[in-house]
Amino acid sequence: MTTRVLVWNENIHESTQEEIRAIYPSGIHGAIAEGLAELLGDEVEVATATLADPEHGLTAEVLERTDVILWWGHIGHDRVDDAVVARVQEAVLGGTGLIVLHSGHFSKIFTRLLGTTCSLSWRNEGEREIVWTTSPGHPIAAGVEQPFVIDKQEMYGEHFDIPEPENQVFISSFEGGEVFRSGVTFTRGRGRIFYFSPGDQEYPVYFHPQVRRVLANAVQWAAPASEDRATPAVSNPARRDWAALAGAAASTAETATTTEEATR
Amino acid sequence: MTTRVLVWNENIHESTQEEIRAIYPSGIHGAIAEGLAELLGDEVEVATATLADPEHGLTAEVLERTDVILWWGHIGHDRVDDAVVARVQEAVLGGTGLIVLHSGHFSKIFTRLLGTTCSLSWRNEGEREIVWTTSPGHPIAAGVEQPFVIDKQEMYGEHFDIPEPENQVFISSFEGGEVFRSGVTFTRGRGRIFYFSPGDQEYPVYFHPQVRRVLANAVQWAAPASEDRATPAVSNPARRDWAALAGAAASTAETATTTEEATR
Amino acid sequence: MTTRVLVWNENIHESTQEEIRAIYPSGIHGAIAEGLAELLGDEVEVATATLADPEHGLTAEVLERTDVILWWGHIGHDRVDDAVVARVQEAVLGGTGLIVLHSGHFSKIFTRLLGTTCSLSWRNEGEREIVWTTSPGHPIAAGVEQPFVIDKQEMYGEHFDIPEPENQVFISSFEGGEVFRSGVTFTRGRGRIFYFSPGDQEYPVYFHPQVRRVLANAVQWAAPASEDRATPAVSNPARRDWAALAGAAASTAETATTTEEATR
Amino acid sequence: MTTRVLVWNENIHESTQEEIRAIYPSGIHGAIAEGLAELLGDEVEVATATLADPEHGLTAEVLERTDVILWWGHIGHDRVDDAVVARVQEAVLGGTGLIVLHSGHFSKIFTRLLGTTCSLSWRNEGEREIVWTTSPGHPIAAGVEQPFVIDKQEMYGEHFDIPEPENQVFISSFEGGEVFRSGVTFTRGRGRIFYFSPGDQEYPVYFHPQVRRVLANAVQWAAPASEDRATPAVSNPARRDWAALAGAAASTAETATTTEEATR
Repeated sequence: MTTRVLVWNENIHESTQEEIRAIYPSGIHGAIAEGLAELLGDEVEVATATLADPEHGLTAEVLERTDVILWWGHIGHDRVDDAVVARVQEAVLGGTGLIVLHSGHFSKIFTRLLGTTCSLSWRNEGEREIVWTTSPGHPIAAGVEQPFVIDKQEMYGEHFDIPEPENQVFISSFEGGEVFRSGVTFTRGRGRIFYFSPGDQEYPVYFHPQVRRVLANAVQWAAPASEDRATPAVSNPARRDWAALAGAAASTAETATTTEEATR
Repeated sequence: MTTRVLVWNENIHESTQEEIRAIYPSGIHGAIAEGLAELLGDEVEVATATLADPEHGLTAEVLERTDVILWWGHIGHDRVDDAVVARVQEAVLGGTGLIVLHSGHFSKIFTRLLGTTCSLSWRNEGEREIVWTTSPGHPIAAGVEQPFVIDKQEMYGEHFDIPEPENQVFISSFEGGEVFRSGVTFTRGRGRIFYFSPGDQEYPVYFHPQVRRVLANAVQWAAPASEDRATPAVSNPARRDWAALAGAAASTAETATTTEEATR
Repeated sequence: MTTRVLVWNENIHESTQEEIRAIYPSGIHGAIAEGLAELLGDEVEVATATLADPEHGLTAEVLERTDVILWWGHIGHDRVDDAVVARVQEAVLGGTGLIVLHSGHFSKIFTRLLGTTCSLSWRNEGEREIVWTTSPGHPIAAGVEQPFVIDKQEMYGEHFDIPEPENQVFISSFEGGEVFRSGVTFTRGRGRIFYFSPGDQEYPVYFHPQVRRVLANAVQWAAPASEDRATPAVSNPARRDWAALAGAAASTAETATTTEEATR
Repeated sequence: MTTRVLVWNENIHESTQEEIRAIYPSGIHGAIAEGLAELLGDEVEVATATLADPEHGLTAEVLERTDVILWWGHIGHDRVDDAVVARVQEAVLGGTGLIVLHSGHFSKIFTRLLGTTCSLSWRNEGEREIVWTTSPGHPIAAGVEQPFVIDKQEMYGEHFDIPEPENQVFISSFEGGEVFRSGVTFTRGRGRIFYFSPGDQEYPVYFHPQVRRVLANAVQWAAPASEDRATPAVSNPARRDWAALAGAAASTAETATTTEEATR
């Protein structure tokens, strides 16, 4: 079954700065989408949307048919409409996967889902970043070189104010000596979240083969596991007749017993 | 060092319903505060505040001198001012401990810190609740009976839409067969959070000796570990001269070496 | 790609007690294997092995071609050869998935991988067990009824001495009021581990449709994510020339940039 | 209440190599013990023991009166008697805190409690280590400089084969670009475990003021929370009369209600 992916990017730098457009002629969203198509082919249907689109491209109809959202934002976080953010949060809690990238750590959607400031330390001097895998068995790390190097990147450093991650997948070191938990996972409601830090707009990070491998793995990992996409809600059940419910299951089990075949 | 505690309660039921006031003549906040004083004596200074107080009693000055907040709310969540909630969140991220109780699962402060709906299933028929300890070595479980029983309580049942807790301390079962993760911990920023579910206003839960033991332990556990109470924030450091920083530490170490005494 | 599954069962009860053989004519391993084949069809190749087999059926050759092992044991834990246990542990650390069932909580392999006693409280009086899902978005919970009921089962109760699970998938309640963390996940090395408690030999639990659904999901979840199946080991690298490594990646990235297509 | 601490060190390097004895005239254990006394004064009673002692100094009597054990080992892991290791594991599962240091990652006690290989990458060329705090609110990080620098240390690098830690307290970077999860916590049974990597015998790390601060904090954190020091064990309770147990608690609660004083 095809995973329907939406790559969301505020697309402000690319629209207003020639030097950034030169690095990303199709926008950061275009480069990411291309990478996913390259590595996942028919497994995915990839669409893109930007801040400038009506409702930022995140209408109820679009969200209903989206399985995984990738999010890149930087200087336009405050311009994302609160009603749209609420809609995206509801989708994630219902099972839509979310992959937040780089400066998206300060996006409304990410800080809202995590509850912390998501602040960090930074320095943009084109330092070399080395990305180390700390969970080699994790699906997001499958086939990723240990370690891989990004020639020039913006430094992000600890203390990164996030909750304790469920899984710590990557940790990066920078030339200046800083470290950063660059690949971390969380679950919120039914939805899976992956934050991946490399990706400042001044460097061609989203063309990096290892970064493309990570994002492809992350899309596969974040896709909802179940058809059931309901956002968790309150229920108020009466006392149940468990004996009756058990009885139904028991007769089904007996049927299975009588048709059993030896396997060994 | 005394831990400064603030017990916050919306105090709507007690103010408007005689039958609730009969159970809690001093309000739920009064009963909780009494329990803390009884078990922790001089270790704590306990104050209380309610929704009706100016700024709900949660002024910047009060928060500055508070180490742990306990929060009980039910039908007045939406009446808590957003600016006050933001102030409390900032305090927790800076290190103030937070203990959220019962229907406080739907409070603005709790849902904001966790990022999920915090929804659950419920039924209020005075069912017996059995509280089982799943982390007997956890400070919050110290001296708590395994298990303890609350004669009549409101049923809260799974699926409780919270993030995966850092520590699962208690799980409850109810007469009707439901289960609930009734004692769970989280960390947000520098702050420690404990959610404890028993405590519907129709039952004298906050007079229960075991419940009082849990809350006393939780206050001690949630108190900030450090004098440093700054909310995490962004920093933008220049490349550092690590050799110089290392040199300073090295000379201090040499001093320690020369004054070493044999211990064994 | 087919997942190669091995269902391991000590097979002592079935071999020595007529009343157990009557419930499980093909052994517990046969019933489990049948359930996997029924739900996963061509996705899996299922083999079985028992304690009585040479090397308990867990030779180096068998382990090399196994992706997921399911383990049921009860009164024969001490008869499992230590060298075989070491071999299985090494396989799991290298990426082989492991699903431990019921009384397998006391198996050498499980206690060795977890480091705790894995003790619990129990009572075998055919009580009704209600299995509640606490992580509805987890792949192991996909399509599982919330809750499901097992008519008669052996009670397992807290305190279950396991490390804090990575994910808490199911919690059970029993007629007698006990609760148990009945579905929990761990990662060790590259390997994924799922422990699922329902399954005393005196009841036809492994014919229960919901139990079969859980085990099928668990096999899919536990299968290794990567071709790389090396058990983690020590390395002693010299200082690396990161600039050279970065250069190689950079030229690959440039190639990708020049061939980029517009997506939006 | 005084915390009773035992600093265990194999003491092989100090006994056999003059150049190591010159750095640690009282042994690594002596230096660590001195640091704890310096920072914790009357709060602790510190004893030391070494591999050469009868039963390695870890008799049942010693363990009964020990609250926290610090463990340093390197080339003598295999010489630690298995019966002694089993005794220490049982003590930790019963609540004794354990702090494992540096090359102790390969000790029998640590690998046994964690279940993984605990392997890593290493290089001993006296590189500068920078220790960054990732959980500033954690008691172990209280008062620790962010970051602190160790002038010369042995490099430990990822992939560090440990289970996902409960709390990630410190991450280190090294001159050569490697990173390492240098401060991590686990719980096993009732016992709390902290692993801290800096500390190769060739460098005066245990005289470093920040390292001494970390170890002092860790001792306070790891000390058992409860008087109850029983190792978890199996129990087999009959069905309980919960109404009777609830009744006992209810009458105690009523007593508390009638003596309640107004607090607000």
